[in-house]
Amino acid sequence: MPLPTTQTAAIKTGSGDTAKTELQSIPIPQPGPSQILVKINYSGLCASDKSLLRDEWTFSGVTMQPQTHGIVGHEGAGVVVTVGSDVQDLWKEGDRAGIKWIASVCRKCEFCTNGVDECHCPEQVNSGFNIAGTFQEYTLTDARYATRLPDGVKDEEAGPIMCGGVTAYVACKRSAVRPGQWIVLPGAGGGLGHLAVQYAKAMGMRVVAIDGGDAKRDLCLRLGAEQFIDFNTTKDIAAEVKKITKYGTHGVVVTAATKAGYEMAPHLLRPGGTMVCVGIPKDSTVIAGAPPIMMCLRKLNVVGSVVGTLKDVEEALEFTARGLVHPTLTHGGLEDINKLVDDMDAGRLVGRAVIKISAS
Amino acid sequence: MPLPTTQTAAIKTGSGDTAKTELQSIPIPQPGPSQILVKINYSGLCASDKSLLRDEWTFSGVTMQPQTHGIVGHEGAGVVVTVGSDVQDLWKEGDRAGIKWIASVCRKCEFCTNGVDECHCPEQVNSGFNIAGTFQEYTLTDARYATRLPDGVKDEEAGPIMCGGVTAYVACKRSAVRPGQWIVLPGAGGGLGHLAVQYAKAMGMRVVAIDGGDAKRDLCLRLGAEQFIDFNTTKDIAAEVKKITKYGTHGVVVTAATKAGYEMAPHLLRPGGTMVCVGIPKDSTVIAGAPPIMMCLRKLNVVGSVVGTLKDVEEALEFTARGLVHPTLTHGGLEDINKLVDDMDAGRLVGRAVIKISAS
Amino acid sequence: MPLPTTQTAAIKTGSGDTAKTELQSIPIPQPGPSQILVKINYSGLCASDKSLLRDEWTFSGVTMQPQTHGIVGHEGAGVVVTVGSDVQDLWKEGDRAGIKWIASVCRKCEFCTNGVDECHCPEQVNSGFNIAGTFQEYTLTDARYATRLPDGVKDEEAGPIMCGGVTAYVACKRSAVRPGQWIVLPGAGGGLGHLAVQYAKAMGMRVVAIDGGDAKRDLCLRLGAEQFIDFNTTKDIAAEVKKITKYGTHGVVVTAATKAGYEMAPHLLRPGGTMVCVGIPKDSTVIAGAPPIMMCLRKLNVVGSVVGTLKDVEEALEFTARGLVHPTLTHGGLEDINKLVDDMDAGRLVGRAVIKISAS
Amino acid sequence: MPLPTTQTAAIKTGSGDTAKTELQSIPIPQPGPSQILVKINYSGLCASDKSLLRDEWTFSGVTMQPQTHGIVGHEGAGVVVTVGSDVQDLWKEGDRAGIKWIASVCRKCEFCTNGVDECHCPEQVNSGFNIAGTFQEYTLTDARYATRLPDGVKDEEAGPIMCGGVTAYVACKRSAVRPGQWIVLPGAGGGLGHLAVQYAKAMGMRVVAIDGGDAKRDLCLRLGAEQFIDFNTTKDIAAEVKKITKYGTHGVVVTAATKAGYEMAPHLLRPGGTMVCVGIPKDSTVIAGAPPIMMCLRKLNVVGSVVGTLKDVEEALEFTARGLVHPTLTHGGLEDINKLVDDMDAGRLVGRAVIKISAS
Repeated sequence: MPLPTTQTAAIKTGSGDTAKTELQSIPIPQPGPSQILVKINYSGLCASDKSLLRDEWTFSGVTMQPQTHGIVGHEGAGVVVTVGSDVQDLWKEGDRAGIKWIASVCRKCEFCTNGVDECHCPEQVNSGFNIAGTFQEYTLTDARYATRLPDGVKDEEAGPIMCGGVTAYVACKRSAVRPGQWIVLPGAGGGLGHLAVQYAKAMGMRVVAIDGGDAKRDLCLRLGAEQFIDFNTTKDIAAEVKKITKYGTHGVVVTAATKAGYEMAPHLLRPGGTMVCVGIPKDSTVIAGAPPIMMCLRKLNVVGSVVGTLKDVEEALEFTARGLVHPTLTHGGLEDINKLVDDMDAGRLVGRAVIKISAS
Repeated sequence: MPLPTTQTAAIKTGSGDTAKTELQSIPIPQPGPSQILVKINYSGLCASDKSLLRDEWTFSGVTMQPQTHGIVGHEGAGVVVTVGSDVQDLWKEGDRAGIKWIASVCRKCEFCTNGVDECHCPEQVNSGFNIAGTFQEYTLTDARYATRLPDGVKDEEAGPIMCGGVTAYVACKRSAVRPGQWIVLPGAGGGLGHLAVQYAKAMGMRVVAIDGGDAKRDLCLRLGAEQFIDFNTTKDIAAEVKKITKYGTHGVVVTAATKAGYEMAPHLLRPGGTMVCVGIPKDSTVIAGAPPIMMCLRKLNVVGSVVGTLKDVEEALEFTARGLVHPTLTHGGLEDINKLVDDMDAGRLVGRAVIKISAS
Repeated sequence: MPLPTTQTAAIKTGSGDTAKTELQSIPIPQPGPSQILVKINYSGLCASDKSLLRDEWTFSGVTMQPQTHGIVGHEGAGVVVTVGSDVQDLWKEGDRAGIKWIASVCRKCEFCTNGVDECHCPEQVNSGFNIAGTFQEYTLTDARYATRLPDGVKDEEAGPIMCGGVTAYVACKRSAVRPGQWIVLPGAGGGLGHLAVQYAKAMGMRVVAIDGGDAKRDLCLRLGAEQFIDFNTTKDIAAEVKKITKYGTHGVVVTAATKAGYEMAPHLLRPGGTMVCVGIPKDSTVIAGAPPIMMCLRKLNVVGSVVGTLKDVEEALEFTARGLVHPTLTHGGLEDINKLVDDMDAGRLVGRAVIKISAS
Repeated sequence: MPLPTTQTAAIKTGSGDTAKTELQSIPIPQPGPSQILVKINYSGLCASDKSLLRDEWTFSGVTMQPQTHGIVGHEGAGVVVTVGSDVQDLWKEGDRAGIKWIASVCRKCEFCTNGVDECHCPEQVNSGFNIAGTFQEYTLTDARYATRLPDGVKDEEAGPIMCGGVTAYVACKRSAVRPGQWIVLPGAGGGLGHLAVQYAKAMGMRVVAIDGGDAKRDLCLRLGAEQFIDFNTTKDIAAEVKKITKYGTHGVVVTAATKAGYEMAPHLLRPGGTMVCVGIPKDSTVIAGAPPIMMCLRKLNVVGSVVGTLKDVEEALEFTARGLVHPTLTHGGLEDINKLVDDMDAGRLVGRAVIKISAS
């Protein structure tokens, strides 16, 4: 069956807080020699998509803006429809493929070859940032860095694992919390948080979930949290964490992209504990860290984490294939992105939003 | 030869920036069953002594003040003169002993038994803070936590290793910089910095030293730094570090207790690099860390470090016994402490100050 | 209630394969200043007890023999009845205490202070080896190295955790298998093996259990193994392991004290995998390892493990307190030791044998 | 200047102990799309070349034989003369390139992507084993896995670093010996050993060198060993090692491919120490390891190591570029290979042999 020549894409219009996406018909691109063209069945909607659409992030004083004609999205799951000339030994039409925030790395630099830092390759290409993302029916990606989707993981779940899942999984690894030790997850009922609860549990950690309201409590406890602290009804959260864990937890993952979240986090840790930074606030004055006297006397560790390597993604998917980790999904179509972004911004979104794009 | 009954001690008077030490005659204490009494030959003068004398530190909103009748000092080296009844199998009169910031730990808690965190025992006792320190002729300490001084290390060098040396050594270890990788040391010519240069060099690291002036340059290069950056004459230090190291260094040790030092440090690192916090500023608004977007996209690590374990101190001393690490010393007596503290505060002190106390 | 002056003990008579234990009445000892006297409620029966009773072990050409008037046993759980004069701040009568293979360490040497090797202190004292063990009603032990038993762990379970449990737990840690990776446990239905299945599962590992017969299969699967290989009906075990795990497992724990077990183990591993040696065969010609070409080309790791630190034991107990690890018990009294040792030797013992001693 | 069409190669004739190389004229091959053709200036001669020429190695019961028309050699350094069509962005004519034992890996499998095990890719291609090696004037290799040679390293030194150097360097890393700790190097004066002395020294380790005779003593001490033990004049080597290091060393690298070497090595270690297997003996009955009772009670680690990753090679070269590591060279031409192999077999070779091939 021949491919159509045009497709529908959700394209950014406007800027800042009032930016929107608009559905447009655009041509379907052809893969270069080392690329594959993937028909996107589902794509997750990540908090980064919102930040890039709304121009929320600055780095080194510069606003980070998608250079992709405004097509964001980087949690794609679908099926290969065309294979570039150089990579026909790697992929064939009909293979299931996942597309990630990192679309491509150079494979030569120190970071690509030192075994742990490929996500920090200075030549990396990012889906929905410097190449067009997954909020369109057909997306090009580097064949050598796309992810093979395993049996037993449906596209609607694979999508959110591509970024949200692997981010939660790698953050749990970066926490260095060992089986039997405590991890605390502020925002445990959110899009990233509810995945982190499940990965942490599957990794043998004991989870203290923090979130607000009975629905979140029920979700967190059902997903494997051992304790729940409701921030609506708890005055001194750090004291409550210490009541449960004696000295504080061994790790905390800051998924919340807020100043308050970053300020509270180090106070939840015991000496020697590790705070993993994941959420990226709009407010560029936030400093992730703690006063030096606290860092030193408590031997704290503050570490940054962003997505994960090709291998990390495979591992993250395997937990889903084994039935241990499932994203809680809110469904929508390309036409629902604006509303879902608003819901996300307002904290109304339950679990992870996933956009049905080409799936029939 | 019987011990005298009184001794001279340097005792805190006044408070805040105008606090001083005053020489007084006080009784010589008797050891409890598990203690030894050490005749102090030399004691180093640490930046923490200045901070405790001048009430510079606050933690959790409370000023940390010595509860020791004002006798600070925690870098003591001397000889055992009396041994408590329970520890006569451990020490005998005439043994050489070192006294450290941590005078005693509980040996039972999670931190004492987990193999890496004994310096964070919540029951620890600190020399010159909650027991009297080493700025007196005879000091009591816990026999089980005192350090045996090895042959080949003189008391005047052993003193400064007890805190300054081990702090520099452990900070280098905490940096996780491997042999052949780069470490940058702002304040490399200072009391802690010049020790860190030597430990880093002995550990196979490549050292970029940062300090001001030709005397500091000569000192740093002589001690083993491979590169020197003069902050007086260098406009963009981060750019200069990257010129030398391509992507930035793998580690930075922040010995400087200043806001500027903490703000600059993360910008010197390559992705995956580690910033070790050591210096403790007066200014309690300083946050050691970086904006979350930088922590995440560069996978930075910010870690606190304070002194080291009993075993770390033995290792730190061994580098000196092997001739690889020597503190550069400024000498004085108990009567010179006020002047030396002023010099330290003004940045005029060369290397580490050491107080000759009972040495003949 | 005053203590009696005599007690019953199971004392070794004879030597080699025909050695037995005989019940005798002996005096109850008094604690030294740093000791506690523990009334033993239950003591596990370890394979090492059999080996020491029957003179099976040689090391550096010398047979290891108990120098304890023949009272072996090192998995004791009971209650403190007398406290030595120096340690009354640590224990009081009525406290629940556990006694381990390592009864005491020096706390001064490199191994006691380096944070990871206290179990290799050259001055260590061993229960049932160079001090009398737990197969008597009242046992002396070093107050500073005895283990506090947590609420929620019964004495009959705590006993077997003191050695069998912590050995299984630490072996799993030494395997370096991460959550989601594969570990294979030959002898998974045995005394150590069935504990290793549970710890591995609680640590997030995927377990391939190897043992013989349907009862063992049922036990292993019930305790959390994901796969079971019956060595009675499987021709090529290594091939079967690879069928399940593609390249072989990431770790193997050799609890079997046999030449065949040690020879098979490295063939079950994938490149980079780790073989943990735990079982100690009678046959002193067994070499734990692999041909150099296999070690190198597959980057194998072969590591030894023996019991665990004070902290490891606390962690091992906590898994039981949380309900995640329970020894399967075969009960007996002091008079049943000979029969249980025979059963162990014949491979007839189900799970772990535990001796009821003073429990009422 | 156009390439010639034929070249000289040293080609295996015969088999077993009497195999030789014979110079023949053969065609110069053309690179495939992802290959480069390298004019070899120098190639080191590795012990593996001898083993492959003489059919010494068996693995899983099969003799490993070069499937390369008998052209061995895998320590090549030279200059790129032709670049395949797909990799012209990576290399250009005139670039300096190094060729290694591992010529190519798949970059997709678990081992290529887990960050630490690319040398264990099951799809790897090996120079001088399953593709023709460097004992010819022009060698093809995978452009993506060839090594860029840095300024400051001459071809005659770069060659031996490609395998011997990186093997010594990675073995030192695998030993896990930290700066200030002891490593012992049996065969320290040999081809691999003398490189290991230099890397260990540059990594801050304290080196005990073992070898025979005054020339080896002088070499080892000159290269940085702190102690030398002459096996010709020392009766009990393990006792001598313990006299120097108290408890034994923290690590040992077994470069000697002999049964005696593997048997002695674990006895040189302190508890917790690590034995790194590097040498591959002809004798296929050798087991690298120790009796289980010794593995357990001393917590030994026995690990295999083979060459290193692309990144490891870059690091190894950098030590040479910095002037810290220099192979001691015995020079020859292609016509001298047979004699040099005989010298190697007889233990007469000083340092590393390097074959001048195309260098003018």
